[in-house]
Amino acid sequence: MALVVQKYGGSSVESAERIRRVAERIVETKKAGNDVVVVASAMGDTTDELLDLADQVCPAPPQREMDMLLTSGERISNALLAMAISSFGMEAYSFTGSQAGIITTTKHGDSRIIDITPGRVRDALDQGKIALVAGFQGVSRETLDVTTLGRGGSDTTAVAMAAALGADVCEIYSDVDGIYTADPRIVPDARKLDSISYEEMLEMAAVGSKILNLRSVEFARRYHVPLRVRSSYSTNPGTLVAGKVEDIPVEDAVLTGVAHDASEAKITVVGIPDQPGYAAKIFRVVADAEINIDMVLQNVSKAEGKTDITFTCPREVGARAVEVLSQAKDDLGIDQVLYDDNVGKVSLVGAGMKSHPGVTATFCESLSEAGVNIELISTSEIRISALVREDELPESVRALHAAFELGGEEEAQVYAGTGR
Amino acid sequence: MALVVQKYGGSSVESAERIRRVAERIVETKKAGNDVVVVASAMGDTTDELLDLADQVCPAPPQREMDMLLTSGERISNALLAMAISSFGMEAYSFTGSQAGIITTTKHGDSRIIDITPGRVRDALDQGKIALVAGFQGVSRETLDVTTLGRGGSDTTAVAMAAALGADVCEIYSDVDGIYTADPRIVPDARKLDSISYEEMLEMAAVGSKILNLRSVEFARRYHVPLRVRSSYSTNPGTLVAGKVEDIPVEDAVLTGVAHDASEAKITVVGIPDQPGYAAKIFRVVADAEINIDMVLQNVSKAEGKTDITFTCPREVGARAVEVLSQAKDDLGIDQVLYDDNVGKVSLVGAGMKSHPGVTATFCESLSEAGVNIELISTSEIRISALVREDELPESVRALHAAFELGGEEEAQVYAGTGR
Repeated sequence: MALVVQKYGGSSVESAERIRRVAERIVETKKAGNDVVVVASAMGDTTDELLDLADQVCPAPPQREMDMLLTSGERISNALLAMAISSFGMEAYSFTGSQAGIITTTKHGDSRIIDITPGRVRDALDQGKIALVAGFQGVSRETLDVTTLGRGGSDTTAVAMAAALGADVCEIYSDVDGIYTADPRIVPDARKLDSISYEEMLEMAAVGSKILNLRSVEFARRYHVPLRVRSSYSTNPGTLVAGKVEDIPVEDAVLTGVAHDASEAKITVVGIPDQPGYAAKIFRVVADAEINIDMVLQNVSKAEGKTDITFTCPREVGARAVEVLSQAKDDLGIDQVLYDDNVGKVSLVGAGMKSHPGVTATFCESLSEAGVNIELISTSEIRISALVREDELPESVRALHAAFELGGEEEAQVYAGTGR
Repeated sequence: MALVVQKYGGSSVESAERIRRVAERIVETKKAGNDVVVVASAMGDTTDELLDLADQVCPAPPQREMDMLLTSGERISNALLAMAISSFGMEAYSFTGSQAGIITTTKHGDSRIIDITPGRVRDALDQGKIALVAGFQGVSRETLDVTTLGRGGSDTTAVAMAAALGADVCEIYSDVDGIYTADPRIVPDARKLDSISYEEMLEMAAVGSKILNLRSVEFARRYHVPLRVRSSYSTNPGTLVAGKVEDIPVEDAVLTGVAHDASEAKITVVGIPDQPGYAAKIFRVVADAEINIDMVLQNVSKAEGKTDITFTCPREVGARAVEVLSQAKDDLGIDQVLYDDNVGKVSLVGAGMKSHPGVTATFCESLSEAGVNIELISTSEIRISALVREDELPESVRALHAAFELGGEEEAQVYAGTGR
């Protein structure tokens, strides 16, 4: 008998009808002889509706109360799911994050799980019940207040529960039936992967794949929890996320896929004194503003002993980055700060990169052949990313996907985002 | 500095705009130098919407999950209220029933409060914060599951909190601005009472006054918590519920008001052997079906050594009462069971009854003068109730209200019900 943790995204439980359909699937899994723990997100639009209400009563709501407000969404969906399961003749208990023993830090709105004491969940399983755990939420160890785990929090809840209970697999259900070699909306012949290593999935998530939340994949890797990305609309086995890159035999190592991301902005700091320490000063200013930097390029020094530095950061904090740098202009001894958010990042990910020489060459060639100019390039052991014009992003993805022959035979089904 | 507990009903927080208005009132009370604890019900229709969802996913939802589902309504309204308060520059913390230490029995859907450990609420007050407690909910001492207190539960939460914290007053806010001598929708010159004793309020609530939940008044009497029934739309001081009937000087004792109730049904058991024990048998059968009996009348014995018994019970269980009695027909030795739900109960309540002779006489005279026939009559020390035809109920109320000169000068403002 296996222990299966299943996570259902907001779109999978957006209506009473969908909740009943999901309940059927859960009951089937239980009847197949498994212990089942379910983590569900809030119903479709619930979160947006609650955020809208909050916005109406208070311009800048306290995060503690925001967490109290938003977590009710998962209480509702999980209780309804438990009811639906019972209507199919199985006993189900729903638990809040606190009841399920999800202990977190106190940073409201973006807490970290620091411990899990799933005693009550285990008891429910021992009694033959199906246990439902409200996703996205926990309880602060210090204040005992309700906390939330931030974006993609329900994935993290599911993986953490699976780790704490020693589950055999953690299935992540959404309206996406797996991890694709590229976004099928852009690349019609994108192929669904049967499996992918944690590292490759991390790279894919880090460079734009929205299917799995980055933190949940890190969690899964650390605790060796096999993840399975599946669709709640099909019986397709989906994609298995498991295993280390090191464990992939060189001859089997392949290129995984092409990801893209249009959420970054490019900032260029012009005229930096070409002396040790000035670049550091710049990144310190940006870091102090709590802005994360992604790609970085330092141009070759120019005649007059000055140099430029270009980096990318999330668009929503781009203006802020320009602001703090401009304010520190004199102190940094720089001439000017340029901002450009018509950029997009295209990335090729795959363990095969290590063993197949010339990948970078082919990468650059295929883009230039597509008439795409590379403005910035950065690489990791199993990833190459290039910054291009935003409007050239789709063409770039198609060019790379074709150049590395990642396509499959049949047309991929198009899917949408998955919310929390 | 006083400690004030304020309870706001669902209609008082039914929209973002109303929540902000209520928040202003709370902030004013705090600024006036009081410690303030607030108990709010779920927003207007939330409960109905959640019940509707439950109905869609499961024909007979498990009560445990129903409690988990419904309690989210109060979490939402209290969190929003806390946000609104903070937008007026005051710090507010919302607590779930469990966080507020409301310990209950395990009977889901209708739990009883068995203990209150308001440590966190007190800490919040000590830190100068306004404390909000989600009404209607608690946590089971045995199972640690979320429980609900049943109809009018938020009133009970407020009174229990006031008792546990030793509050100076518990203000019950709704769209009603006080306790009236009769329902102003029926009696235009109904008068708002400045004060009423616990016993009188209990009688009024017991015989149809919907303004205060019976259990909360019992709670207030037991722990000597002064209640003030007020409207969240006016600054009117409302009606004070406090004091014992015994403490009312005889010369001040008056008749409080006329209440009516059209929620009962009349059941007549015909042809009962007129021997000791048979009546008891009948009430045992009804009691075993968990049906509460209100008024009872045993007719005088008839020639053939048989008698009839008539009693009233809530309409929603009337059919069930007939069913269980009919099933036990032979065992009870009865001829037939008659059912009639076109009845209404009109009651006169007041401590003055004890000291003013002839009240019963005037009661009956005024009804007969109004052409109303009394089918059943029952009395307590401070109440007289009569069962009449349902369509004669309004006229009966007006007749009694006039006969005992309970009216005031100005026209009363018409109000509606208040939900939880």
